[in-house]
Amino acid sequence: MSILYDERVDGVLPAVDRAGALSQLRELLPGVRILHEAEELRPYECDGLSMYRTTPMLVVLPDTVEQVRTLLKFAWDQGIPIVARGAGTGLSGGALPLEKGILLVMARFNRILALDADAGTATVQPGVRNLAISQAAAPHGLYYAPDPSSQIACSIGGNVAENAGGVHCLKYGLTLHNILQIKVLTIDGELLTLGSEALDCQGFDLLALFTGSEGMLGIVVEITVRLLASPHSAKVMLASFDDVEKAGGAVAQILGAGIIPAGLEMMDNLAIRAAEDFIHAGYPVEAAAILLCELDGAQLDVAEDSQRVEAILLAAGATQVRVAKDEAERQRFWLGRKNAFPAVGRISPDYYCMDGTIPRRELPRVLKRIAELSASFGLRVANVFHAGDGNMHPLILFDANTPGELEKAEAIGAKILELCVEVGGTITGEHGVGREKINQMCTQFNSDELEFFHAIKAAFDPKRLLNPGKNIPTLQRCAEFGAMHIHAGQLPFPELERF
Amino acid sequence: MSILYDERVDGVLPAVDRAGALSQLRELLPGVRILHEAEELRPYECDGLSMYRTTPMLVVLPDTVEQVRTLLKFAWDQGIPIVARGAGTGLSGGALPLEKGILLVMARFNRILALDADAGTATVQPGVRNLAISQAAAPHGLYYAPDPSSQIACSIGGNVAENAGGVHCLKYGLTLHNILQIKVLTIDGELLTLGSEALDCQGFDLLALFTGSEGMLGIVVEITVRLLASPHSAKVMLASFDDVEKAGGAVAQILGAGIIPAGLEMMDNLAIRAAEDFIHAGYPVEAAAILLCELDGAQLDVAEDSQRVEAILLAAGATQVRVAKDEAERQRFWLGRKNAFPAVGRISPDYYCMDGTIPRRELPRVLKRIAELSASFGLRVANVFHAGDGNMHPLILFDANTPGELEKAEAIGAKILELCVEVGGTITGEHGVGREKINQMCTQFNSDELEFFHAIKAAFDPKRLLNPGKNIPTLQRCAEFGAMHIHAGQLPFPELERF
Repeated sequence: MSILYDERVDGVLPAVDRAGALSQLRELLPGVRILHEAEELRPYECDGLSMYRTTPMLVVLPDTVEQVRTLLKFAWDQGIPIVARGAGTGLSGGALPLEKGILLVMARFNRILALDADAGTATVQPGVRNLAISQAAAPHGLYYAPDPSSQIACSIGGNVAENAGGVHCLKYGLTLHNILQIKVLTIDGELLTLGSEALDCQGFDLLALFTGSEGMLGIVVEITVRLLASPHSAKVMLASFDDVEKAGGAVAQILGAGIIPAGLEMMDNLAIRAAEDFIHAGYPVEAAAILLCELDGAQLDVAEDSQRVEAILLAAGATQVRVAKDEAERQRFWLGRKNAFPAVGRISPDYYCMDGTIPRRELPRVLKRIAELSASFGLRVANVFHAGDGNMHPLILFDANTPGELEKAEAIGAKILELCVEVGGTITGEHGVGREKINQMCTQFNSDELEFFHAIKAAFDPKRLLNPGKNIPTLQRCAEFGAMHIHAGQLPFPELERF
Repeated sequence: MSILYDERVDGVLPAVDRAGALSQLRELLPGVRILHEAEELRPYECDGLSMYRTTPMLVVLPDTVEQVRTLLKFAWDQGIPIVARGAGTGLSGGALPLEKGILLVMARFNRILALDADAGTATVQPGVRNLAISQAAAPHGLYYAPDPSSQIACSIGGNVAENAGGVHCLKYGLTLHNILQIKVLTIDGELLTLGSEALDCQGFDLLALFTGSEGMLGIVVEITVRLLASPHSAKVMLASFDDVEKAGGAVAQILGAGIIPAGLEMMDNLAIRAAEDFIHAGYPVEAAAILLCELDGAQLDVAEDSQRVEAILLAAGATQVRVAKDEAERQRFWLGRKNAFPAVGRISPDYYCMDGTIPRRELPRVLKRIAELSASFGLRVANVFHAGDGNMHPLILFDANTPGELEKAEAIGAKILELCVEVGGTITGEHGVGREKINQMCTQFNSDELEFFHAIKAAFDPKRLLNPGKNIPTLQRCAEFGAMHIHAGQLPFPELERF
């Protein structure tokens, strides 16, 4: 399979095996927890994307920056690949381990180092949970805006690695727009400070370059986030539609009216039913689609805008518009949406969650095409998405025990992502590329563009030890992919075979 | 001086002189305007930072992407450096020509290619003026948010190159936050598409990497910007203070209350007097400082917030708060601020405009230190700044005809920038590094960090032909700077001598 290697891959194999690495690391890192027994390693064999599983050579859980530096220097000297992992909630396999690599678990970096309420900033370690930041900021009337559905569990370091979004990123931006500075260790142990507490970056914007780079350029060891003042008032509306395209049209009209909702989410009938069965959120189970629209800000502003939004929704064909009557109902409306994925998990043995983004104007066309794909492959697709920013999460329902269904699900998924690119969108909205969408990167980028990615990778990680085989495909992989039309998940991930 | 060269500089000198390049380019680019006579070249010898001047070898004004590609290939083959220029309004010498280089003027790329009102996007050529985008969008109730004071003249391509800000960037972000996609030509003629119409970037964020890279990585030939709905209502307040520190305190309290004004600007007494003499904006000439605070959005929201802001201003010690009574007065309040630089130019033979950013909490301390520097060097300093985001523009007044005053001005400027870094800020807020602040980059970054900048530069421009000597200092320059404490402007810019 050597034809699949990129010529820039140096092909160095780790000089040590598990036992050798373990004994050396125990000496270099006294007191640090290192997992090596089969039963200890099993919980780490996948992240939130459970369709891929690999047992890592070792799992290391350091507590200090110096320990991480020591580990990286050891890996550098021995040629051992390093995969960093936060809370393991990622949905694209970005933290999938390597059989001959070390899994660096940052869970113990769980301290909030500083919180400056006047400046509206918090400096935290990467293992701090997303929601814990908002909880610590709450007494000051502040919060951290990006809120992935996994926010109760996911770590801020993982959010930086994947440039995570959430239901409120339409108004408040992605992770990149809500962080000011990060400290990173390079593979050879240099500590870099990227960004600043000021608005602009000097030189080249390395903070942006690292955000979303999926652990391929360095290890984030500290993050300064921006905190926002908690909105004085928030109101959520639930609009029912008898037609999915009408709901899509309403989205365009709300935004076209210059209103930027804090969240603007859409679910189709299959997703509505699944969520309602699970959460009893009060969703209309007969509706073809619902929109959840949240407005936040000053009280009068919210009151004024919610009248305008209601009028727009009705004019766009909503059969009913309900405003959450109190905070409890508001929370319930959101709970249904935030649990849509597990809810779908209850009605199907397996599901495959996609994450493509499209220009909003293409919403009706893409929904129609997804319905056609669903019909022609004979698999149900539930649509749940951040309608405001065009970030779709089609959930493809299948049964892995029925021969051929996994392959069909992957085929539909690949076609949906290619469709996203075709209409001017992208293959990932907020879940990252990871291992899952490595082939679709060949559709998204041409070889000139990929070569620059590789050159940047080589500048920071010349031995390609940091999370190899994720995010950026080799040119050879793309050549093979283009020639062979291999679907996601079916490839042997040849770059990884050397490990 | 070879000790000052970076070892990665290949030291190739252009293979042709002016006459040779001219005759070859005339053949390669029939019909393209190429300037070569002394009097034609003179208008291009500096940009908005007139303290540095160099006559370029040739000025080329292409009309098409293909012509730019041909020019770049010629430069690549011949080893001729290329400096790109938009409207020439930049304030850090980013478009300063090279004596043995070609100045690529993008002024003729002045067409708006598409405007999609539903999607809220416009696709434009780089030579389009910033304000022209908002003018084209106005009939649709839309506008382009970043508004540098030079917006009537500056080009969107230059805005991308410098990641330009403006008085409204506190609420609406810098250029990077308001663009979706760019097309760039690399030095060897490849056309790359970076970013997308969707929210997230895949792979590494090359759109962010290019934004603010000052023409060192490639030539931007097309830009898709995000358009926002024009606010329904805007109100500006002018608050007077008898003490600069009280004004600084008011800024912190407004933002701490969770209000994000569209603009929050501060001027000290010297700037107030100069602006009032020039514009007759109605400023209180006895005040130690004024704050201009603009709120925009829905009518009720603006009304509610302006009451809160007024109360905060008075509680923070404002001696008077005036709300612009109509649109004409609102425009006049802003006109004084936007003309503060030329106004200061009327009261001093020369002035040197700085552009540092600091964490907002350091405002009082930094203002005090600037006053001390002003007293100890015996030069007046007028302070005009974007108080909301901590972006300061101290204007150092001097007379270049008085021996020693230029050097004193440069010394104060360098000390102010170093002070910015010391308190956790940066050496540039929105004007870029260019040639002006190349030495202060050595204060801002350590050699590990600079090495990564050079590696990225090498990936895109291995012959270092794109705008050499700007933005990113060589390590040797920093070593010399550190050892010799040379001030900005006094250095012979050794990297440039080969041209």
